[in-house]
Amino acid sequence: MTACPIEDRLAIQDLMTAYAHAVDSMTDIDGICDVFTPNAVFDLSGIGLAAIHGHEGIRAFFGNVFTTMAHHAHYLTNFAVTAYAGESASMRAYVIGMGVGKDGRPVTVNGRYYFDVVRTPTGWKAARYTMDFLLPLSGTLDNAK
Amino acid sequence: MTACPIEDRLAIQDLMTAYAHAVDSMTDIDGICDVFTPNAVFDLSGIGLAAIHGHEGIRAFFGNVFTTMAHHAHYLTNFAVTAYAGESASMRAYVIGMGVGKDGRPVTVNGRYYFDVVRTPTGWKAARYTMDFLLPLSGTLDNAK
Amino acid sequence: MTACPIEDRLAIQDLMTAYAHAVDSMTDIDGICDVFTPNAVFDLSGIGLAAIHGHEGIRAFFGNVFTTMAHHAHYLTNFAVTAYAGESASMRAYVIGMGVGKDGRPVTVNGRYYFDVVRTPTGWKAARYTMDFLLPLSGTLDNAK
Repeated sequence: MTACPIEDRLAIQDLMTAYAHAVDSMTDIDGICDVFTPNAVFDLSGIGLAAIHGHEGIRAFFGNVFTTMAHHAHYLTNFAVTAYAGESASMRAYVIGMGVGKDGRPVTVNGRYYFDVVRTPTGWKAARYTMDFLLPLSGTLDNAK
Repeated sequence: MTACPIEDRLAIQDLMTAYAHAVDSMTDIDGICDVFTPNAVFDLSGIGLAAIHGHEGIRAFFGNVFTTMAHHAHYLTNFAVTAYAGESASMRAYVIGMGVGKDGRPVTVNGRYYFDVVRTPTGWKAARYTMDFLLPLSGTLDNAK
Repeated sequence: MTACPIEDRLAIQDLMTAYAHAVDSMTDIDGICDVFTPNAVFDLSGIGLAAIHGHEGIRAFFGNVFTTMAHHAHYLTNFAVTAYAGESASMRAYVIGMGVGKDGRPVTVNGRYYFDVVRTPTGWKAARYTMDFLLPLSGTLDNAK
């Protein structure tokens, strides 16, 4: 593949970090939407959740998540550029996603994030986001219904 | 904000990594002090510890920590430049801080580090360091008295 | 030491990430060998395993690992260039290495990777790899016999 310039690599990594930071704010749904294109595919079927679409779907999903969860901590490591074509790219990262529900129940996800991103006038944005598990889930995902 | 040059971004990230490495050495108080300006504010009030000041305060704090703890492992992820002004900058990182006391008791901190740094003749140094929790503390901090 | 150019730093970091990714594939022994020079020293004596040598030794080792383990997740953080001489370099990283055996038993290693790498016509490769523990092992290493 074409080599990914360092500036782009770091910008895409920053986008993934911004996603984790917004998810861990427990409130910032605007910040989450800002990571994605308006019609992005947000597909967590790889970890047993329904695939959703666009900012409207993302808002509904996190509205529910933030209603049921008390704390989040999503640690991203092992960033790797897996595709690069100038105006689009793909990046993989590992995640340790920890949560504590308002009912006190803990959940830990050990998996990987896959971001397909596109260059836009306001920076790189995710057009597609998927996940898979590295280890069996510890706890239960409240939204996995 | 002004864009942070990659060289500075990586140098500040390296400073935070050097802090973790020295804290995990269980002995290297000089290495910890070398991360901070002589009169730095070392303020862990966000996780229930007393704020301390300067190399003298840092030496006393870690003198106590290294007397009571047997093992440390501080994993830093999710680095983000949150301010940059050429001669000063701020960087946030996530931390999983694990410890085992000499009494065998484990403690895990899931939180964030906030470093306010300044450029000095010997490289970037932290002028202020604070933390907050992402998840409730697991275990107890011996120094939280 | 000579400053490590950013391109080299990121390439060596990518090599370590590629190692974790191949180890976590549970199948890709070719991908693991591709990280190492043909006669590399793969020395995990620091965590109680026998030192092995070269691609043949690595193949035998991971043949056994992949027979006994069901899942892996190796998270790498705290990358630090510890030596650089143009055609060779050393990098340290922290690792949280999680595994689940086919018998269901979990194991977690909290330690550090040390890679001594050399520049080759096909990119940076590890000529020597060692590890140490940061925290006492949680669980047992099946290969530590």
